[in-house]
This record gives sequence, structure tokens and C-alpha cells, in this order.
Amino acid sequence: MLVNGKHSNLISIRDRGLLYGDGVFRTLRAVGGIALHWSLHYQKLQYDCAALGIDCPESGMLTGELDDLLKLYPESVLKVIVTRGEGTRGYTPPILIKPTHVWDVSLLPDYPEDREQYGIKARLCQLRLSHQPLLAGIKHLNRLENVLAAKEWDDADIVEGLLMDTAGCVIEATRSNLFVVTQGKLITPDLSRCGVAGVQRDRVIAWAKRHNMTLQVRDVSLTEVLRADELFIVNSIIGIWPLRELEDSRWIDFPITKRISQDLEGVE
Amino acid sequence: MLVNGKHSNLISIRDRGLLYGDGVFRTLRAVGGIALHWSLHYQKLQYDCAALGIDCPESGMLTGELDDLLKLYPESVLKVIVTRGEGTRGYTPPILIKPTHVWDVSLLPDYPEDREQYGIKARLCQLRLSHQPLLAGIKHLNRLENVLAAKEWDDADIVEGLLMDTAGCVIEATRSNLFVVTQGKLITPDLSRCGVAGVQRDRVIAWAKRHNMTLQVRDVSLTEVLRADELFIVNSIIGIWPLRELEDSRWIDFPITKRISQDLEGVE
Repeated sequence: MLVNGKHSNLISIRDRGLLYGDGVFRTLRAVGGIALHWSLHYQKLQYDCAALGIDCPESGMLTGELDDLLKLYPESVLKVIVTRGEGTRGYTPPILIKPTHVWDVSLLPDYPEDREQYGIKARLCQLRLSHQPLLAGIKHLNRLENVLAAKEWDDADIVEGLLMDTAGCVIEATRSNLFVVTQGKLITPDLSRCGVAGVQRDRVIAWAKRHNMTLQVRDVSLTEVLRADELFIVNSIIGIWPLRELEDSRWIDFPITKRISQDLEGVE
Repeated sequence: MLVNGKHSNLISIRDRGLLYGDGVFRTLRAVGGIALHWSLHYQKLQYDCAALGIDCPESGMLTGELDDLLKLYPESVLKVIVTRGEGTRGYTPPILIKPTHVWDVSLLPDYPEDREQYGIKARLCQLRLSHQPLLAGIKHLNRLENVLAAKEWDDADIVEGLLMDTAGCVIEATRSNLFVVTQGKLITPDLSRCGVAGVQRDRVIAWAKRHNMTLQVRDVSLTEVLRADELFIVNSIIGIWPLRELEDSRWIDFPITKRISQDLEGVE
């Protein structure tokens, strides 16, 4: 673990990341000593920092630290956190404040292989995501909604929970983005009022453009989700997993999901 | 500073307080070696921990640590943070997890005395608070809305910013609760969809009951605020400050505010 470039697993109790969740993060996958899609993650980090008015650490510095970690942990999950830094008491950020950046490393999770092949069982969470356009899409450290949603179930068979917003639209899952396949079209929920816009979601959107598949980013109803031809969730660690079960609905074949998955796991 | 009862100003980067804002806090004022209204703060801490499913540290332990701090810092601002603790990766809390508790001490702020006497200048924030009934009222560590609201102005004359919600109701201020005085009645916004329910707000509500003053907890419109006979904000550090200026409205006399303030600062 690195805190501001130094080996440490500790952070000040006066860091605004702890006090207010005043920061952002990214989670990425290292395979064979390569951090997959690091440049896309860094772009998101920059964008998210800018949205909160945090000075994003420079690419060269973060990439240098990442390279050192990759040598030690070539197969791993890497997490980078950037907080606004350590400051005086009160919500107003001090004018002069130096952001804190943290790297953490964990083992690659040992997911059953059949998830990618046969799909996962998901449920619908009761918690409804609140609307905050100023924070929507950003992977910030205010994640209590995700925590409370993930606490809703303890059945180990259920791998993910879908989240609706207060308006009744389906938005995402607790730790992944959602795609709906209907009549050969790809649809993913609009994240302008809530939700986290992940790198893997962008990659699927880019795939659709390259392959001239209709891709809609818009509000998605629960009915549409339950009647979809295919459903899949994505994030940078799992890649792409189809849904085989959601509440009372079942799916068996995932031809489009598998095509995208094969393309994105491969050279593309 | 104390972390889990030991002298330290550091916390693990794997603490869920940092990772997800998965925790709660209280800020209290120490005067003459006494932490004002500690028992009320502890009750809130218990309530807020329970709302998130965090085991609240026992009263005896926290009170013991507080007493030690009060001997060293008899005039100070004390902050206690309780997080869900340090856990494995992912939003789902581990079954066995030990909460982290942190004490931090700062100097009592040197507020100008005329604020209590002549009132403060406040503004209306542009940010609208989002509705999340599961988190409403709780003083949790997901405080990015407060941070973004506080960043809206840098005019040192403006002491506080009032916050409305997405439905257009006035809810609170960035770091204080709001009371409206109209025709001899006290009104304070309903906090069942957003906002933080502070100890000082409860004390004013209790005062109204003791003094048979009509007290309404309900939705409050901006028009009602701007046309109020008196407005005042409260929190555990400032006590009670009347508003003398809000946008284009001005107030000069605050008889009811001062009566409450004198009672609550005194023996009651």
C-alpha cells in the first residue's frame, strides 16, 4: 500500500476522505503485470476530481507508482483513492490543500468460472437511489447507498442487486453497470441523476459504436428489464456477466452478451 | 487524538469510514472541562449507528475516553467518529467486523460575539439536497453535498448557506439546523427525506414543549422563510445565531430567538 507515494497503510484522521467522503476512487484489474485500461481509468479519475474541484495527481506520478506496484503484484486488484486532503475543521475546503492519493492492492477474486458462461442470479434491491445531478456518474467516496443496498441480502447464491432510483427507473447494480439487450439493441441507463459511470460501461458503449449496434443511453423501466432478451452487468474486475435469474424472470441464452464479452476480453 | 482508545492520529486506509463514508460522527463543545450535552450526543450516536447497522461503542468506554480528553482540553471542540471498521474489499460488510472509534480535538472557534447579538448574513445555496429517507436525519460520513454547498461562496461576510431539497423545501443550513419564527410559532423543517437532525435542534424543540410554544416540524417553503418574523440557526458549537440578512430580506429584532438562546445557554 502507498499513501502519497510512500509505503504506508495509514491515513490521517483529519483527511477529508474520512471526514466527509471528500474524494474519488477507481478499482482496476492487473493481469500479467498490466493494469487493464489504466488510461481510461485515469481519464475518469481526472474527470471525477474536476467535478469535485480536487486537483487530480499528475498522470506521470500515478503511473510511476502503479508500475512499481505491478512489478510486485502482477495479478491483482488495484485501487487508487484521491481525497481532497487534510484540512482544517469544517466543510469549506481550505484554499491551500494538497490532495492525498492512496494505492491499495488485493488478490484477484476467485470468481466461479460459470458466471461468465451461464450467468448469475441477481435480485432487485429495495433501496432507491437518490437524485443528485452534481454527484451523478462520479465514483466518489460517499457510498453509503451501495453499502445499505449490499446489506439487504445474505444469500450467497445472489451475486448482485439491481438498484432503482426514487423515480422508479432501473439505474445500475450495487457494484456494476447494467446493459439491456432488446431486439438487437443495447440499452444502458442514463446516469445523469444518480449512479456511477464505470470504465467498462464506456468500453461496451464504444464497442456498440464500432460494431454499428444501436446503443441507447436513457431511462430504463423495470418492465423493460424483466422482459429483456438478455441482461448483463459489467465492471472492471468482473468484466461482463450475463443475468440468468432476476426475481421471477429467467434467461438461458446470451448470444449478444457473449459476443461483446469475447471481443472486449480479447484484442479490442 | 485517540483511535480505538490509543493515542494516534492515523487510521487504516482499509477502514470503511474512508472507503465508503461508512460511519457516523458527532461534534460537541467542551466548556470548563464539561462536554455539553454529552448524553444527548451519545443517544444520537447510538441511534445513527443503529440506522446503519453499526455496533455503537459502549457508553462507558466512550465516556471514559472523553473524560481523559476533557482533563487535557477543557475548552475545545470534540469530535467523535464511529466507522463500521476495517474490512475486506466490497460494499457488503463482513459479518465479523469491529467498529473503529476516533476522538479528535480542536480549538474552540473564535467567533465574533456580535453574531449572537445582531445576527448573521446567510445566503441560499444552489445545490439541492437529494432525498434518501434511509439516511435522512443521520449525521453520517457521506457529506459531499455539504462540502459542495459550502464551496459555493467565498465571501467571508456570509456565515452560512441555507439548503433546499430537490422538491423546493428549505431543509437546513450547511452545518446547522434552521428554525423559523412566525406569529409566535416555532417551525423547523421536517428531516425525514434529507438533512441532519442535530442535538441543538432537539433542545430547541424540547424548550418549545416546556414553554408551551407551538412547535411545528413540517415542510417549509422559501417564501415562508423569507417572510418569517425571525429566523435562527443552531448547532452544538455555535449555539443559536439569528439571521439578519438572507438574500434580499433583512431582520433587526430577534426577541423570541434571544429568549430561547438565553434559556438554553443558561440553566435549562
